[in-house]
This record gives sequence, C-alpha cells and structure tokens, in this order.
Amino acid sequence: MNVYQKLESLGIAFSEPAIPAASYVHFVRSGNLVFLSGHLAKKNAKIWVGRLGNGVTTAQGAQAARAIAVDLLGTMHEAIGDLNSLSRIVKLTSMVNSTTEFSEQHLVANGASELLVEVFGDKGLHARSAFGVAQLPLGACVEIELIVEARPV
Amino acid sequence: MNVYQKLESLGIAFSEPAIPAASYVHFVRSGNLVFLSGHLAKKNAKIWVGRLGNGVTTAQGAQAARAIAVDLLGTMHEAIGDLNSLSRIVKLTSMVNSTTEFSEQHLVANGASELLVEVFGDKGLHARSAFGVAQLPLGACVEIELIVEARPV
Amino acid sequence: MNVYQKLESLGIAFSEPAIPAASYVHFVRSGNLVFLSGHLAKKNAKIWVGRLGNGVTTAQGAQAARAIAVDLLGTMHEAIGDLNSLSRIVKLTSMVNSTTEFSEQHLVANGASELLVEVFGDKGLHARSAFGVAQLPLGACVEIELIVEARPV
Repeated sequence: MNVYQKLESLGIAFSEPAIPAASYVHFVRSGNLVFLSGHLAKKNAKIWVGRLGNGVTTAQGAQAARAIAVDLLGTMHEAIGDLNSLSRIVKLTSMVNSTTEFSEQHLVANGASELLVEVFGDKGLHARSAFGVAQLPLGACVEIELIVEARPV
Repeated sequence: MNVYQKLESLGIAFSEPAIPAASYVHFVRSGNLVFLSGHLAKKNAKIWVGRLGNGVTTAQGAQAARAIAVDLLGTMHEAIGDLNSLSRIVKLTSMVNSTTEFSEQHLVANGASELLVEVFGDKGLHARSAFGVAQLPLGACVEIELIVEARPV
Repeated sequence: MNVYQKLESLGIAFSEPAIPAASYVHFVRSGNLVFLSGHLAKKNAKIWVGRLGNGVTTAQGAQAARAIAVDLLGTMHEAIGDLNSLSRIVKLTSMVNSTTEFSEQHLVANGASELLVEVFGDKGLHARSAFGVAQLPLGACVEIELIVEARPV
C-alpha cells in the first residue's frame, strides 16, 4: 500500500499549505534533508489558541499535535513531490504552550508521533524533543517543526 | 552585486564574533551544512536585556532580531570565508524572551528574516520556528540560531 | 588513548539507554549526521525534577546537564557502535526549566559542554543554544538534545 492509499484508509486528507506571511518559507531542502518550519496548531483552519494546564487538556493537546502532523504531511508532499519517496522522518521538535505546572509535553507530542508512525510505519519513527514554552505565535497551543530525509534526486 | 557590496549599500557592517566564554564554539560545519550557535541580542556591544510583553515592544524586539542577524553574518563570514559562497539560509530558530501574554514572536523574528532576504535575496529565504521562552542567558530579549548551507569545498 | 580508555580514566560509565515509551526513538542517523532525542536529566535512574531559580541552583543544574551528557554518550555508543568513530559533536541544545528570573542557562549548559570536551577533546567542541523553558516533560530540570557527526559507513 502506498502512502496516499494509507492516508485514504486512515481517513486523513491534507490541504495545500497556506502561503507564509513573511520572509520565510515552509521548508528548505539541503541535500537529502528537508527542514520544515514550525507549524502552528489549527482547528477549522484557524489558529488553535490555548495553553496546556489552563483550559486545554493533554488529550486536546495531543489532538492539536495530530492536526499539525497532518498539516506537515501537506508541506512534505509539496517539498518532495511524492510522499512515497520519503526515506525517514528524522527529528520532531514539539513546543507546547504550557503553564509552569503542566509537565506532559511528551504526551502531547505523541499525537504527532503516532500519526507519523501510522502513516509511514518504521520510516515514521523519529528522534524527538518536547518542551513547554511561555507562549507561541498568535497564542497557538502547540507548534511542531520537523526534519525529514528524502530520496536523493 | 556581490554580498559585501550589498551589505555596504544597506549600510550594514558586521564585526568579528567575540570568543566564546565556554566549552563551545560559534559554529560547526558538517558537510555543506553549517550550524551556528544561538546568538544573543546585543545593543552597543552589550547584551540587550528585556522581555517582550513587559517593557520591550514588538518593534524593539524586531530590531533586536535584526541586530542578531547582523552578528550572525559575522559568524557566517568567519565560518565559510566568503559570504558569496553561501548556498542557502536553511533554518532559523528564534527564541523570544516573552511574558505568558505576548504572542507576536513571529513579528519579532521577522526582523532577522527580512534582513537575511535583503542581503541574500532568494537564497536568504529559510524555514523558521519562533516561540516564547521563560528566560534567556544573561536576560537577553532574543536569541537566534541558524543552519546555513555553504558551497561544497 | 581511545575514548573508552578516556572514559575509564575520568571515572565515567554510561548505561544502556532505556527503551522509549512512545512512537519515537533515541536517535536517527541520516548520512553522517546522527540526531539524538532530547534526553531528560536523571538522578539515581529517576527523573531529576526541579526548576532553576526555585530550589535548584546553577551548580546543581550544571551537574544535571553533565549527567545528561553521560546518558547521551550511551545513546551515541548505541547509534554509531564505536565512540572512536565519532567525527564531531555538531550541535547541542539545552532546554532549562527556569523561573522567569533565572538567566544562567548558559552556565547550566556548561555542565554538558565541558564533559563532551573532556571526553572527545577538540572533536567535542560544538555549536550550542541554551534557553529557559516554562516546564519540561515529567518536571525534569534540564533537557538536552544533540546532533553529532559520525565517520561515513
């Protein structure tokens, strides 16, 4: 089963990434590595605002992380043309908008990690860091950036 | 116009990076990638202390980010010898010293992003993450790290 | 003196990394680069809980960072098989669980940076970023991630 069939079987549809509002881009490829910009959590195409530990639960944070992972699929598709040519998800970094008491950033990040493994299998297994930040752009509850490896062109 | 002429036309002069105070260096090259250390915002050669959302405005934060980008140019020059041999600004990460209310980290980061595009044109377009941190070394208002790609040696 | 003799002379013994609890791994290699996951500070095999600026001193934070560096050695050993084939410590990122007043994240990070230079000499010198985060997974006081370069296989 190729990746797009897998996505269909999982009921996952990604859309085209929005055009960045500033002097940056969604991704840059260097050699076989593709560096993806930090993507903010969205719900119904709007920024998913909130803070873990204060109104946003761990389960909701994991859903937000999963939603970001779907958006990241869209960016990866744009970056490498064919998701079947992805060699590996290399590194995921998860910034979680957190109170000073909330310490389940790893469980929030799981929402994205698990989606990537569902879609890509062992190629989806990645190195990872997760930590709690004071605040995120536009008040988003989670931001995730990614490094992936693509097949040599 | 080469990069140094461009810098002159923009009125931008960078100085030599200070020697790191500890067991680390300003940059490490691996293959064509150069990883630059997090650089702290400075004003008149001193750490630019402050917090966004509490005394430092978004416009000031963007100026601080721009000042860091100039310092990063100095480090890039030292790293690759000739800024004209830079292939691409790959990834910029902007850590913004933020109150829990301040959510314009992306506008702060624009100060650095825009400078890089002014200087390098399309090669200056980069992937990017920006987030708010609880505090930074020496109380700096902004810290920025960079990954760039240089021409093969 | 090879790296293992050096470790013995320094009285440093690392243990095997624990198996990750979720859909991620301790490291991913891509070309010559190895990306190591964020490792949380541990003391007596348990998470080293606490916050810099509120009960954990800078010196204790540096000890925690050093302890993480030892754990990272274990992961590097697993990743590249022989620590003597490490070409370079490339980049270290240190996330320090900080109050909004604590601004010595760089001194905390030194605990890890210095250990790496003790063990690897000039190959241990790395690019680095350090910043204060609102909170870390499981309440850990410090988290460190690493990018290293290994000899081509």
